[in-house]
Amino acid sequence: MSDNRDIAINYAHQNHSSFIDDLINLVRIPSVSTYPQSKQDMFKAADYLADELRDLGAKNVQIFPTNGHPIIYGELSSGKVDSKTVLVYGHYDVQPPDPLDQWQSPPFEPEQRGDNLFGRGVSDMKGQVVASLKAVESIVKTGTLPINIKFIFEGEEEIGSVNLEKFIQDNKDLLTCQVVLNPDSGMIASDIPTIVYSLRGLAYFELRVYGPLHDLHSGVFGGILYNPAQALCVLVAGMHDQSGRITLPGFYDSVRLLSPEERREMLQLPMDDNYYLAQTGVKTLWGEEGYTPVERVGARPTLEINGLYSGFTGHGSKTVIPSTAMAKISMRLVPDQDPKEVHQQLINYLNQNNLPGIRWELTSLTGGPASITDRTSTETKALGLALESIWGRPPFYKREGGSIPVVSSMQKILGVDSVLTGFGLPDDNIHAPNEKLHLPTWFMGIDSLIHFFFNL
Amino acid sequence: MSDNRDIAINYAHQNHSSFIDDLINLVRIPSVSTYPQSKQDMFKAADYLADELRDLGAKNVQIFPTNGHPIIYGELSSGKVDSKTVLVYGHYDVQPPDPLDQWQSPPFEPEQRGDNLFGRGVSDMKGQVVASLKAVESIVKTGTLPINIKFIFEGEEEIGSVNLEKFIQDNKDLLTCQVVLNPDSGMIASDIPTIVYSLRGLAYFELRVYGPLHDLHSGVFGGILYNPAQALCVLVAGMHDQSGRITLPGFYDSVRLLSPEERREMLQLPMDDNYYLAQTGVKTLWGEEGYTPVERVGARPTLEINGLYSGFTGHGSKTVIPSTAMAKISMRLVPDQDPKEVHQQLINYLNQNNLPGIRWELTSLTGGPASITDRTSTETKALGLALESIWGRPPFYKREGGSIPVVSSMQKILGVDSVLTGFGLPDDNIHAPNEKLHLPTWFMGIDSLIHFFFNL
Repeated sequence: MSDNRDIAINYAHQNHSSFIDDLINLVRIPSVSTYPQSKQDMFKAADYLADELRDLGAKNVQIFPTNGHPIIYGELSSGKVDSKTVLVYGHYDVQPPDPLDQWQSPPFEPEQRGDNLFGRGVSDMKGQVVASLKAVESIVKTGTLPINIKFIFEGEEEIGSVNLEKFIQDNKDLLTCQVVLNPDSGMIASDIPTIVYSLRGLAYFELRVYGPLHDLHSGVFGGILYNPAQALCVLVAGMHDQSGRITLPGFYDSVRLLSPEERREMLQLPMDDNYYLAQTGVKTLWGEEGYTPVERVGARPTLEINGLYSGFTGHGSKTVIPSTAMAKISMRLVPDQDPKEVHQQLINYLNQNNLPGIRWELTSLTGGPASITDRTSTETKALGLALESIWGRPPFYKREGGSIPVVSSMQKILGVDSVLTGFGLPDDNIHAPNEKLHLPTWFMGIDSLIHFFFNL
Repeated sequence: MSDNRDIAINYAHQNHSSFIDDLINLVRIPSVSTYPQSKQDMFKAADYLADELRDLGAKNVQIFPTNGHPIIYGELSSGKVDSKTVLVYGHYDVQPPDPLDQWQSPPFEPEQRGDNLFGRGVSDMKGQVVASLKAVESIVKTGTLPINIKFIFEGEEEIGSVNLEKFIQDNKDLLTCQVVLNPDSGMIASDIPTIVYSLRGLAYFELRVYGPLHDLHSGVFGGILYNPAQALCVLVAGMHDQSGRITLPGFYDSVRLLSPEERREMLQLPMDDNYYLAQTGVKTLWGEEGYTPVERVGARPTLEINGLYSGFTGHGSKTVIPSTAMAKISMRLVPDQDPKEVHQQLINYLNQNNLPGIRWELTSLTGGPASITDRTSTETKALGLALESIWGRPPFYKREGGSIPVVSSMQKILGVDSVLTGFGLPDDNIHAPNEKLHLPTWFMGIDSLIHFFFNL
């Protein structure tokens, strides 16, 4: 019924400005999952999404409490027997907006400038959540759904989806489906639709080192003990060798190597050094020797320092030897690394690098394994065709550097693959100040999701 | 006139509680020189001290504005021709009180618990300033000063005495004297009076490294560029070698070596490893190989990290590659190192340790050379006798690890030596939470200063 499809797409085209308004309403709710004080805003966002689902005519809409932030569920039926069921996944939580002073407009008061909408979460991933809802709206307002659709929206993706796996386990029947649509990945460029078939995992830690019982005067005591800030730097500096490889003992032992075929494919991707230089603004790239940037981001594990804190950091000078120092350290993992093994490797590294008078504490904050899915399945093909219908070219298939723990949970518990796409762009500044969404691309994304639902 | 001396000391003994009250009044004023918002409190403290000088009967009391915080001057005459003139130096500014949550009582609401008074500045050095004033008060309220006394109080010692040298230069005649009394050093223990004959210098820097134009997502970009937080750690870690020596090129070239005689003397000081282990609470000491802790603190240069900051440091996790990272780095210098040379050595080190895609900025915040004075002068002997009269034993002569830039300025511009003592103890927590003053020692200090003025 290509007519239904066209009518739905026509509806979408006529409602662009109300689609933007609805996205703005959601972005206005500062649902930063990592802040303890955000509890109420998380519920506000959950209520908002439950109302949106009800407006679509969804049945069995529920807000499930968890030990953390609530999970929203709702379902729409095609009305036909034997229809396929797609589970659409999304998260309504966002990253903290700091550093606030680098935003050109307030992060939770979305502002449209030219073709872009600016605000925390517009791209990652409230924009993608709203795109899915609007694709469904366009179909149900103009006709009948060709398939069954279930929605699940969580509020803890940015803090490691800590309560989602238990929820999936406890609600296996409710979530039964043939495929998961996860629009939390992005595009290589606005003219290159992209399907992601592998994601990196994550293991995130806070390392604290301790020295003297309290801060000391650096004149009176400077020279007699190991400074904890220096100790932290020595430990962090030692985590990479000169060739950019991570030195934790055994870190690469279970890393699945790229096949020669995949390496050849990756070379086709339009992401050379110049692409990444432009994306980041650095003058020189750096990383593990022997791999291209695309390989390093997509298929090799990395270790990054996400934060440092010690002693006096204010204006001017304070001659103090800090009693403690802290680093936030996270690893991106690839198949077949295990976050628990990596945790132990970090402990082993710290044990092997004792510093005089220094003790340390390591806290594991969040973690999940990498995932990799079948690129030749019916559902992936349906998505590929949908993207091609709108962009006029087949999508690129890509390994993604980011981590989406839910993908491996769905595979493990429900036994279903996720198809991963999304309409964010590499320069969207996700997790950074001035996050944006490219609206023309977003509109094309909504159109392509309409095609996808009809193609299934 | 040993009678006058005894009467003055008797006055001091009868006024201990009013002395404490006056100290508390001064400590209540939060004169943190490094805070831009402290401007008004600095003037409040200056006014308070000027009033105290006027109450003593001082003439020519003035509050001199500077480009930073004001300097207070006042003078008292013996009334006799040919009297010696002592210039008493002090500073009324204090270190920031943070981390605030580690104080048992508020830093600017002094609290007496047992023999100790707690509050920011009680030991460093408002307590020492008030001790000098109270010694003079005890003499002038009960008789006549045996010598002329000039007072100079600055408000920028904790931020490097940035405007003091120019003031001394511009007011050479006003400040003419035969000796400077500087009570800004401390005692080895409450039963060991101490005279300091050498101080270390200081060179304090802020190092900032920059990488990508803004914070990046550690999944999307992790693995392709040098992380600025990691870069900072690598640069800092490389500033010491395994033997605890500082690696800046040429750093030790102009360091004056200890004579075998001084090393023998230093071994006599009652400060062994156990002393420093108890003072700091660490399980193991660390520092430059081949030197004892006393030598490392007093006569060897050191490099300390005073602060670190980068990226996300709040509760929980944020998967960010920070665009910048900062370290506060300071060196303690010994005779004959030059702070400007050390600045250049740090620049050379950074130039020699380029990291891919990383640029750096170095700001020199404050600095001054080390100083060393004559231990056999009349004035040092007068102080030694005064301390012996009260404690019943001759003082220890010591090299101090801290830095008092004014000592070298006075020597250079006025051509006079400073005699350095003080009645703070090593466990006073100066520059740290819960700074305290041991009151019985402080009272003995006031008595000994009365003796000193009579001995001159």
